Amino acid sequence: MKIVILGGVAAGAKAAAKARRLLPDAQIDIYTDDTHVSYSSCGLPYYIAGNFEDYEMLLVRSPEAFEQSRIHVHLLNRAIKILPDSKQVLVYEMTDKQTFLVDYDKLIIAVGARPFIPTIPNINLKNIFTLRKIEDGIAIKEKALQSKHATIVGGGFIGLELLEAFIDQNLKVTLIEYSPFIMPMFDEDISILIKEQLISINDGRFEILTSELVSEFIGDECGVKIVKTASGRDIETDLVILATGAVPNVEIARDAGIAIGETGAIRVNEKMETNIPDIYACGDCVEEYFIMTGTKIWMPLGAVANKEGRCAAMNACGFEDIFAGVLGSAVARSMYLTMSMTGLTEKKAAMAGFNPVSSIVTKNDKVGYMPNVNNITLKIVADLDTGLLLGGQAIGVGDADKRINILASALVGKLTVEEFLKNDLTYAPPFSPTIDPLLNAAEILSSKIKALRIGKFAE
Amino acid sequence: MKIVILGGVAAGAKAAAKARRLLPDAQIDIYTDDTHVSYSSCGLPYYIAGNFEDYEMLLVRSPEAFEQSRIHVHLLNRAIKILPDSKQVLVYEMTDKQTFLVDYDKLIIAVGARPFIPTIPNINLKNIFTLRKIEDGIAIKEKALQSKHATIVGGGFIGLELLEAFIDQNLKVTLIEYSPFIMPMFDEDISILIKEQLISINDGRFEILTSELVSEFIGDECGVKIVKTASGRDIETDLVILATGAVPNVEIARDAGIAIGETGAIRVNEKMETNIPDIYACGDCVEEYFIMTGTKIWMPLGAVANKEGRCAAMNACGFEDIFAGVLGSAVARSMYLTMSMTGLTEKKAAMAGFNPVSSIVTKNDKVGYMPNVNNITLKIVADLDTGLLLGGQAIGVGDADKRINILASALVGKLTVEEFLKNDLTYAPPFSPTIDPLLNAAEILSSKIKALRIGKFAE
Repeated sequence: MKIVILGGVAAGAKAAAKARRLLPDAQIDIYTDDTHVSYSSCGLPYYIAGNFEDYEMLLVRSPEAFEQSRIHVHLLNRAIKILPDSKQVLVYEMTDKQTFLVDYDKLIIAVGARPFIPTIPNINLKNIFTLRKIEDGIAIKEKALQSKHATIVGGGFIGLELLEAFIDQNLKVTLIEYSPFIMPMFDEDISILIKEQLISINDGRFEILTSELVSEFIGDECGVKIVKTASGRDIETDLVILATGAVPNVEIARDAGIAIGETGAIRVNEKMETNIPDIYACGDCVEEYFIMTGTKIWMPLGAVANKEGRCAAMNACGFEDIFAGVLGSAVARSMYLTMSMTGLTEKKAAMAGFNPVSSIVTKNDKVGYMPNVNNITLKIVADLDTGLLLGGQAIGVGDADKRINILASALVGKLTVEEFLKNDLTYAPPFSPTIDPLLNAAEILSSKIKALRIGKFAE
Repeated sequence: MKIVILGGVAAGAKAAAKARRLLPDAQIDIYTDDTHVSYSSCGLPYYIAGNFEDYEMLLVRSPEAFEQSRIHVHLLNRAIKILPDSKQVLVYEMTDKQTFLVDYDKLIIAVGARPFIPTIPNINLKNIFTLRKIEDGIAIKEKALQSKHATIVGGGFIGLELLEAFIDQNLKVTLIEYSPFIMPMFDEDISILIKEQLISINDGRFEILTSELVSEFIGDECGVKIVKTASGRDIETDLVILATGAVPNVEIARDAGIAIGETGAIRVNEKMETNIPDIYACGDCVEEYFIMTGTKIWMPLGAVANKEGRCAAMNACGFEDIFAGVLGSAVARSMYLTMSMTGLTEKKAAMAGFNPVSSIVTKNDKVGYMPNVNNITLKIVADLDTGLLLGGQAIGVGDADKRINILASALVGKLTVEEFLKNDLTYAPPFSPTIDPLLNAAEILSSKIKALRIGKFAE
């Protein structure tokens, strides 16, 4: 049994390790165009921030450790064509510039995603970076340590995580977001709060520009010097990060006749099978089943990739396994502000055909007299017609993420707001107020639903 | 409408505030033998620890604030008899030593619990304390600040919270527990781990004696000096805490013909009604419906008391409300070790007639390269026959409580282990490992259940 895995960061590495445990005698090979395998790309912002010094801390499993499990890791080997009829992959060895064919019985595609690069004049200047791979992180940190000012283009998860990282490294930062809101995956009221809260803890070291576009980069052979914006700003800077999203690497799959889904990522079923026999796909290159709506969504996240890698290996190795899909749970931290969400936002709930109603509370995350008490703002969304909980968003320097995960379990259980109110959450002063903010929010939402149903509710 | 509330710490104070919001014109009176009303007794260990200086931080709402809402608070007024036929309460005014009758339309009994005092020679010596009321906390802190050694009798929640408090105040501490295990509400394997983990972070400042009894206190008019134990130890000490449990205050209710339940606490239905019309009870003096088993349990906890107070007020004021019961969720911290649980332990699941099976994992609470990463140990329990999740226990210096609350939602939703595995928990390096330890534990439990069902599982 020959198992060939293309890509080896999260899903690919997980698939390889799982396959080895399932089939001790299989031949397992990972081919990747990367310089490293099995690493935590989600940890790169914390490496750049200086939370730890050695980038090798990010390596989950070394090629040597894989080799000890008889998993052969071929770094700098780019798969350039899949030949489903002959069950082969054409691989280009990047160092020696050799091309060769590899046979497979089962193929697992885990080639990930790549940064989306916007079209901006002089975008190829030195010191304009994207962040995805280990060497990106190393290069950015090296440059950051010699810099005074960084410009981050894009106000999503990675942009905001890097804001904290650069501030931790004592740089000044300008963050530029083209939409009117940073973190636009949240509802607008929450996005506005995120910006307000970030600005409230700003001591002049960073600025956040929304509804702003980069019109041009200006620099010389030493690198970028100035970021010009559509509104006429000239921002002097030492380095630029393009955190403008990602696109799934689907070209090699499409070229082989593998179906691409409505989201633009590879289409797989719940066994991580593509439409071509014996070819599986997992991780950031595939789209996910969105449990909340029954539709497809592209969620290129580390936890999801790991689960999918595991599931792909199970099925490729002949064991039945199902990946149920995603709830859309995510969390990020910026300037020690936690931003977390699960399920549907109010906006997305309406788009999905629900009749959404929401409540927002701002409360202490623990009892007010405790040291390190902090605020969290929590918004939860339910369907007015059925009472079904649809999602939640929580932000704050306090323990916001805990509440979102409690809610995620309720979404799995398809609980209504009324049912959720039966929840018995732990209480002690270091952990929560007597009544958890999540139950406050649910209580308010329950009253609102009852009032709206009898036409008595007025905002 | 005259609403009379007996007791005003948590349930009573909450009931009063809620009743006022519901019925702006009702006459609302709180009678309590306490010196204070509406305070966080759960916060007393943190006051003693010096986490904050002013005990008034513990006061949620002052008598003056209640008065502004036209809720009349009668401190040091002990209710001594309820006369259901004439709908009156006989009250003893403790300062002036006057007795008088109070009329009620609706009576809410929220008289709480009191410490259980074991029978030990010389237990009335000075500097032997229990912890329940504000003045207990003030007296203990005052004595602790002049002391070098404290003895804590009882290794449950309060005993262990006070261990941290005294260590924070630089005392040496001996904790004595008569059973073989501290925190005996956990499964024995977890109780053993709690003791081991506490001992592992001990730098000689405290000792924990299990299977040990206090045989006698020795002292003089200045107070306790020596704690003698059954095994022959003479422990020199400056103060003693009796943290040997609590008993519900039911005497006044029983005397009035109010039914007492199988747990020894006042029996109420889901509307917090007693068996006598127009008399409600809530808080630490009543027993709870245990959702996990459908039986009764006594859970004298702050969050529960608050919910019950609210529910009692709703129904007393003529609005329908139901308190669904408890899952048995609880958390405490000792020496910065979090100990948290929800639902049934493996032992209690077996006693309740389930066929329990469990898994235990010890994992990082966040990604290993992050600062402040800590271990948590997580045990989850399910029913082998149905796969239903039954409960969980988590301990660790890390974020153990988060995982227990995620599980609590799953218990409300009556999820099986398989269903719970669909959960999509948030991931970013500061918040969890890529796959949350709770999902690891569920994965292992799922495999174990499958293997046991086909008879293939061997420990």
